[in-house]
Amino acid sequence: MKTQVAIIGAGPSGLLLGQLLHKAGIDNVVIERQSPDYVLGRIRAGVLEQGMVDLLREAGVSERMDREGLVHDGFELAFDGRREHIDLKGLTGGKTVMIYGQTEVTRDLMEARQACGARSFYGAANVQPHDLKSAAPYVTFEQNGETFRIDCDYVAGCDGFHGVSRKTIPAGVLKEFERVYPFGWLGVLADTPPVADELIYANHERGFALCSMRSPTRTRYYVQVSSEEKVEDWSDERFWEELKSRLPAQTAAQLVTGPSIEKSIAPLRSFVVEPMQYGRLFLLGDAAHIVPPTGAKGLNLAASDVNTLFRILVKVYGEGRTDLLEQYSAICLRRIWKAERFSWWMTSLLHRFPNTDDFGRRMQQTELDYYVGSEAGRKTIAENYVGLPYEAIE
Amino acid sequence: MKTQVAIIGAGPSGLLLGQLLHKAGIDNVVIERQSPDYVLGRIRAGVLEQGMVDLLREAGVSERMDREGLVHDGFELAFDGRREHIDLKGLTGGKTVMIYGQTEVTRDLMEARQACGARSFYGAANVQPHDLKSAAPYVTFEQNGETFRIDCDYVAGCDGFHGVSRKTIPAGVLKEFERVYPFGWLGVLADTPPVADELIYANHERGFALCSMRSPTRTRYYVQVSSEEKVEDWSDERFWEELKSRLPAQTAAQLVTGPSIEKSIAPLRSFVVEPMQYGRLFLLGDAAHIVPPTGAKGLNLAASDVNTLFRILVKVYGEGRTDLLEQYSAICLRRIWKAERFSWWMTSLLHRFPNTDDFGRRMQQTELDYYVGSEAGRKTIAENYVGLPYEAIE
Repeated sequence: MKTQVAIIGAGPSGLLLGQLLHKAGIDNVVIERQSPDYVLGRIRAGVLEQGMVDLLREAGVSERMDREGLVHDGFELAFDGRREHIDLKGLTGGKTVMIYGQTEVTRDLMEARQACGARSFYGAANVQPHDLKSAAPYVTFEQNGETFRIDCDYVAGCDGFHGVSRKTIPAGVLKEFERVYPFGWLGVLADTPPVADELIYANHERGFALCSMRSPTRTRYYVQVSSEEKVEDWSDERFWEELKSRLPAQTAAQLVTGPSIEKSIAPLRSFVVEPMQYGRLFLLGDAAHIVPPTGAKGLNLAASDVNTLFRILVKVYGEGRTDLLEQYSAICLRRIWKAERFSWWMTSLLHRFPNTDDFGRRMQQTELDYYVGSEAGRKTIAENYVGLPYEAIE
Repeated sequence: MKTQVAIIGAGPSGLLLGQLLHKAGIDNVVIERQSPDYVLGRIRAGVLEQGMVDLLREAGVSERMDREGLVHDGFELAFDGRREHIDLKGLTGGKTVMIYGQTEVTRDLMEARQACGARSFYGAANVQPHDLKSAAPYVTFEQNGETFRIDCDYVAGCDGFHGVSRKTIPAGVLKEFERVYPFGWLGVLADTPPVADELIYANHERGFALCSMRSPTRTRYYVQVSSEEKVEDWSDERFWEELKSRLPAQTAAQLVTGPSIEKSIAPLRSFVVEPMQYGRLFLLGDAAHIVPPTGAKGLNLAASDVNTLFRILVKVYGEGRTDLLEQYSAICLRRIWKAERFSWWMTSLLHRFPNTDDFGRRMQQTELDYYVGSEAGRKTIAENYVGLPYEAIE
């Protein structure tokens, strides 16, 4: 089998890249290890930057998002018993974010791909890219006992942190940067009305908490827990009590609780590899970088990698600009490092760190106080939260 | 002997407070352990915020500063081979800083005090404040074998980190916050022309460096050194070579070297006590808080404490507003913590930390890159560097 771009991974980045390429007349095949239902079962982020929203519109998969998604003009920081509003729209000259779950983005992209008849292979075992340094790379895999080989021009590694793409790159090529945080997020999904119109990021003596949502009737709440915590030890009751204890009293009093639909603990990690390419293999999203979820940058960074590779490939196929391929990694990394910085900073600002002394805690409180109290400080938060601009591909 | 305010310490904060009180008709006595020459021999900061400049003018001691001081509209950050300008004036709506050595400020204040005939005791041994919780505190000391007792309404502790004032406060009253940094600054004073019109703060793989000045013909340069370094191991030649190695090549080529007039190593520390008062004793400046010198906040914070206590005392003696005395510490600390944060942040941003991993170093580089590249980011630096506004005393 032949194609132009073999895409490994059918998460939102692989499917979005596939859809954009398809619309641009560039043939592609998506290869996914899991089943569609498994992919849709993963509960992930839900805050889309303007740049990603625009990209979904460009890909023609925005109809339901534009109908059901919630446009948020701001968010709140809660600390010291206060709730302080960050007016994203006012501080960035009109930019906003869209609340729409990653699961829904993936579902819309799956349906669009099915509707346009582009080729996808789910449940693909032993996926392996080959000859990436040659002009004729290919990807092999097995499905239902049959072995497939897809010859292609380029391979897009959209298969996440644990995927085969990054692991295929020989030792010594990539430099890894990593920070593991000494805590995780315990998250609960519930069919309850959100406690506030906007997201609330809370810094509290007992630890971080986040009041988030997926829709006007579905909420996603988180509390910081130590790395050793087990989800089995957290009854719904315990979770709601802990969450309430970390919110300003009036907010806690307004919180509507209910049975959890999903409950899980996610570790927090910062991770980047350089470069993000090897021969004709390009890494996108979690395959190349992880951010802690504070600031909601993970999915959005994947989208900006998709934007970069898509626009480069359009110029490669349309204008023969193969020189741009060499720039993929550098272009992506400039934006990625700034998002890594913001995610690290928001994490440092809002969490309780087990080994911090009194001076460190006071620096955290003062940092919150300063940034919220300064117009310039609020602007730095807002311009990062809505997403720094994409670089033009020229 | 009787006075209204006994001031312990004849550094810039004690003398400035004395001068302002004297001009306002409030009697005061300054008591200093050292000789005038010893006090003037200390080489310290040289960047005055607008607020301190205004206060010196209000105290009537600005004539020479206004003639000889250098008004700086900005400063530079050097990193990654680049030099980036922070336009203080443009970013803060017209605010600037004044380059004028602490030694010169002290000299001007000493002369003004002598000229107006206000009482000062230098070379005072065994200085000790007493009965601070009573309505009739007093200070005792010895001079030339004679014992003195000064009865007063209030005691101002302007005697620095090692002074007797803070140590007089009983154990358990003060809460201390402290951070000791794993490096120091090796400073050289030289009669050479400055390498640039403005200060240059340099982040370099080999460590931080600062190109500073006291006048158009006198420079003050610093390099970060490990906490174990001895000044005897640093010849002038070695110092200049190390400094040059940390500056962008073109800057290093322009640097004029010369024999050092003074050379010393200072440790870097953040320190704050809460509260800054005990009965009728008020702590000012280094007696209550220390900042690392990155960002030049130490002397300026002392001036803002002076401003606060002075304006409170004017209302106490003029309007009977003794209620304001209880607010002294809280008013000071709000501004102090923000300056502590800025000094800690500038220190974290610019120094090489011995135990940082690759991710930490990349965060530092990205932070520099982001803040310098963002208008809002540059504004946060500028508004802190010129000094956050003083709170009104009402």
